[in-house]
Parts: sequence; structure tokens; C-alpha cells
Amino acid sequence: MINALFAAHDTRWDTYAAPLKAAFQAKGLEVDLRQDFPPEAVDYIVYAPNSPLQDFAPYTRCKAVLNLWAGVERIVGNPTLTQPLCRMVDPGLTRSMVEWVTGHVLRYHLDIDASIARQDRWQPFVPPLAEERPVTFLGLGELGQACAQALTQLGFPVSGWARTPKDLPGVTCYHGPDGLEPALSAAEIVVLLLPDTKETENILGARTLAALPKGARILNPGRGPLIDDAALLAALDTGQVAHATLDVFRTEPLPAEHPYWAHPRVTVTPHIAAETRPITASRVIAENIHRGETDQPLLYLVDRLQGY
Amino acid sequence: MINALFAAHDTRWDTYAAPLKAAFQAKGLEVDLRQDFPPEAVDYIVYAPNSPLQDFAPYTRCKAVLNLWAGVERIVGNPTLTQPLCRMVDPGLTRSMVEWVTGHVLRYHLDIDASIARQDRWQPFVPPLAEERPVTFLGLGELGQACAQALTQLGFPVSGWARTPKDLPGVTCYHGPDGLEPALSAAEIVVLLLPDTKETENILGARTLAALPKGARILNPGRGPLIDDAALLAALDTGQVAHATLDVFRTEPLPAEHPYWAHPRVTVTPHIAAETRPITASRVIAENIHRGETDQPLLYLVDRLQGY
Repeated sequence: MINALFAAHDTRWDTYAAPLKAAFQAKGLEVDLRQDFPPEAVDYIVYAPNSPLQDFAPYTRCKAVLNLWAGVERIVGNPTLTQPLCRMVDPGLTRSMVEWVTGHVLRYHLDIDASIARQDRWQPFVPPLAEERPVTFLGLGELGQACAQALTQLGFPVSGWARTPKDLPGVTCYHGPDGLEPALSAAEIVVLLLPDTKETENILGARTLAALPKGARILNPGRGPLIDDAALLAALDTGQVAHATLDVFRTEPLPAEHPYWAHPRVTVTPHIAAETRPITASRVIAENIHRGETDQPLLYLVDRLQGY
Repeated sequence: MINALFAAHDTRWDTYAAPLKAAFQAKGLEVDLRQDFPPEAVDYIVYAPNSPLQDFAPYTRCKAVLNLWAGVERIVGNPTLTQPLCRMVDPGLTRSMVEWVTGHVLRYHLDIDASIARQDRWQPFVPPLAEERPVTFLGLGELGQACAQALTQLGFPVSGWARTPKDLPGVTCYHGPDGLEPALSAAEIVVLLLPDTKETENILGARTLAALPKGARILNPGRGPLIDDAALLAALDTGQVAHATLDVFRTEPLPAEHPYWAHPRVTVTPHIAAETRPITASRVIAENIHRGETDQPLLYLVDRLQGY
């Protein structure tokens, strides 16, 4: 019997207990899943980063901490966490991110907001084709790659920037500090899908916003701290940035007094771009426990030095 | 030398003369393209259906009438037209249609209108995945097939209905009068891409609207007469149809007093979903003249009995 501690709030237990047990059974794993165990009896921790569990030192037998979410920034720096840590790469979450990014890119491309608002006159125009609308991704991990591929299939010229060199079919790839401004210089739409690290904080700030062509549009379904909010608001006010659709923020829920709410060039969505789906995420947890038990490499292991 | 009459308004000449000549040259065709010829000297007519030319009888040498647009309903019933008639299937137009349909399907799927309007409160929700959102096409011709394929790639379950049986990968196909209601019974989003014929007029009317699940949404980038406007307005008023985005109308421009303009559940776009692109369309005209000169079958020949 494998002992798995479910370390997350009670509402998560209600959502996850049944799909996790179904996924363990489908994988042929005999797992005792509970919200409470003596620490020294625990084999795996299924973890939500806002859990009260913050001291991992007593979990001496624990083979891995399996994160329920994609983001690990609240846990990766925890000095008591010496056990292997795995991110969640949920296929349902990836699909959901692809849908949100593709939908909002096409919304910008077709100027759907104007179509919704301009319900008083017939004013034909020939919109450019997708092949005339360059899109740039900052971040080419699992999510960035999946979104880039979907947009490439629709005909958009896609480029991307990442910390390290990437080679992706149909995507012009830039990397490292020197690649950032070239990646942005032609981008009519920029999508932020970087992890939240010390190096990526404020990566979209005064200097990079100025490197964009005038009237560029921003999508941030990634992480709030990627954007220097004051610099973005200034760029929206001058029209250097024509519009921003933001799904993530430094403080969530976004405070009622935050200027993003009232800005005519900003759309706020309430962190809905990518939500982990219990059914698909539970299968990933089960797969990693199976791998841990059969001495195979764990999926989506976090590089503790890089922070993701 | 091949004599090609350009039968369309002068503004079209300004747009098309250069790309047509470039396409002829690229194809190695020696074509004399003019807006005026003695009828008996004309080898091909490049035609826009709103052209003043309506009597084709004097064009005794003409090998084909090559339509600049996809729709041929204004010309196909002309009794003087005994020459072969070809529709335009412009790859640029197809791309543009795919972009419009995919963008508005994702707009409905993600409820982007609510995101734009609801800029006052943080109200998270988990939207369904595309795989939980059935989309049905009425019409599975060149355009319907291309759009269905794009939506299938994004994960939507796609079904379609056509007059005759079709077999398309990943698309549940229905056909004939008996297939219409089954095709509609699960459709959360319906896309109209049928040709305008006697059989398709008012195909979306009281009976078919009632066959939809409550709260379905309608996209019409096809032809205005496909919809019984009074029946659609009634279905919008009861909420049987939650929203309609309409790009084509029986009368265009849509008259200022038409109830669609003011209806809160209707978005009007001014016939922009698919516009022929001169550069790509000119290549199709050149290809068909090349085929006519080398006795190969013409592309996109209209079936005069079916009307498209």
C-alpha cells in the first residue's frame, strides 16, 4: 500500500478525491489517499501551493511532492523541501490555454471588439489575413509551444523568445537577453507565457514595450509579475500599446481600485485562461506515482536552480 | 493572343488589373485584358455579378465566364448564359473565412463578450473545454470543410449537414432533408455556409430553430436568405437562440431601420467574413484560362441544375 498525503484545502479534496482514486485504480496502483498521515509514513505528497503544509523536513520517506498546479513559485524556494518536486502539466490545462490564447488572438486580429461596439453603421473593410499578423510568444515551454503550434496552423507568422535556444517547426526562435528586442520588434500581438522567476520579473517594462511596433496588443495568461504595471499603463495611455487582455495579476483577486479595471484599453479576465482539470490532472499524478514506484524518471521534474 | 474581357465596375479594374496581368505572365499566358471588346472577339469573360453585362448571347466565341466571387446566384439563372461558368474558390477567401468562423466560435465558446462587458468584478469560472462544445455546420463545401477542419484541430466536436452524403475525417456528417434535425439537435454553435438556392432559402426557420438545444448560438457568414429573419428574431426574443452574429443579409448594406442593428443578442458585421483577395484570386483566373487553352477541365465549374 502506497500512502499519499493530499495537502490542499478541503474544497480541493471534494474536487480531487474521486478522480484521483479513479486514476490510481486505472493505473493498478494501491494508494491510500488521505488528508492526514503521520509525516514519516508518507510516500508521496499531492500538493497545492497554498496548502498550510510548509515544513517538508519531517517527511523523511516521501519520494516526491506532486504539484496540482503548473506554477511552483510559492514552493520552489522553500529550504525544507529537499524531496523531488514535480510541476503539473495537465493536458486539459494546456487545451484550455490554447483555446484562450487562440480566441483572444483572433479577437484582436478580427477586431471583434469594434464589431460588438459598432452596431450602428455598415462600414466594410478588408481585414488582413493571419499571414500578415505577426505574433510573438515570450516563453516557449509546454504551454507556449502548444499555443504557437495552434496559431501556426491558422496561418499566423509566429516567433518566440525563451531563456535557452529552442528549435520549433514553423516558429522563429530567439533566446537570451540579446534576443528579446529582436523578438518583439515586429510583434503586433505579444503573448506572455513565461514562468515567474527573478529573471522574468517586469520583463515587459518600459524598455521592451518601447521595442514593440506602435499599436501592439498584449495577452498575459502567464504570471502577473511578468509585467511592470506602471509601464504598461503608461504605454496604453500613449497608444504605444493599443490593448491588453490580462488574466493574471500580482494580487488576485485584482483589487477593486486597481486602474486596470477602469482602463478603456484593458480587458481583465479572472485567472480563467488555464485551469487544471481534475480528471486529466489526476491521471498525471497517478502516472508519476507509478513511475516513482517502478524507478522510472518522474515527469515534469522541477529544476530547482532555475526555479521551474 | 487571348482576349479577356474584364466585366466589372471601374473600381474593380483598379484593384484587379495589375494582379491579373502579373498572374497571366507568371503562367506564361499572352492575354489582352480590357474593359471593352467587340463581343465576338472575346475568349474569356472575367466577371463580377453586379456588372452591367447581362446579355451573354453575343459572346459566341467565349469559352468560359470566370466569376471573381464565390457566389453565383445573380448570374446562374441568366437564360442568355450558355457558356461554362466557374465560381471563384480563392485560397485567400477560404483562409479569411476560416479566421472569421474560428474567431467567432472561440468568442462564443470563451464568452468573450461577457469578459469585455463585465469589467467591474472578479468572478472566476471554469469554462468547458472545446471538446465539450458541439459545433454544427450547415454546408460542407470548400468553405465549410476548411472551417470544420480548423475547429476539429482545436478539439471541438464538429458535425455537418449537406444536401448530398459527405465523408470527412473527424466530422459527423448528415445529409438530405431527414438529416437536418439530427444534425442540429446537439449543436451549441451553428455555422451557416450553404449556397443560396431555392432549397436552402429559409433553411434556418421556425422548425429548425426549435430543433436546436436552448441557448444555441448562430453564425451566418454564408448567405442572407438562408435565414428566416422573423423566425430568428422570435427565437432570440425567447432565448431559444442566445446570440447571432450575422455577416450577410437579404439586403446589403443592412438598412438602418432593420431590427438586427438594435437587437442586444445580435452582432452585425458588414459582409467582411470572406473577401476575395486580388492576388490569390487572380492566380485562379489565370489557372482556368490556362486550362481552357490546353483543353483541361475547368476548375470550380458551376452545376447549372443545382445552381452552384
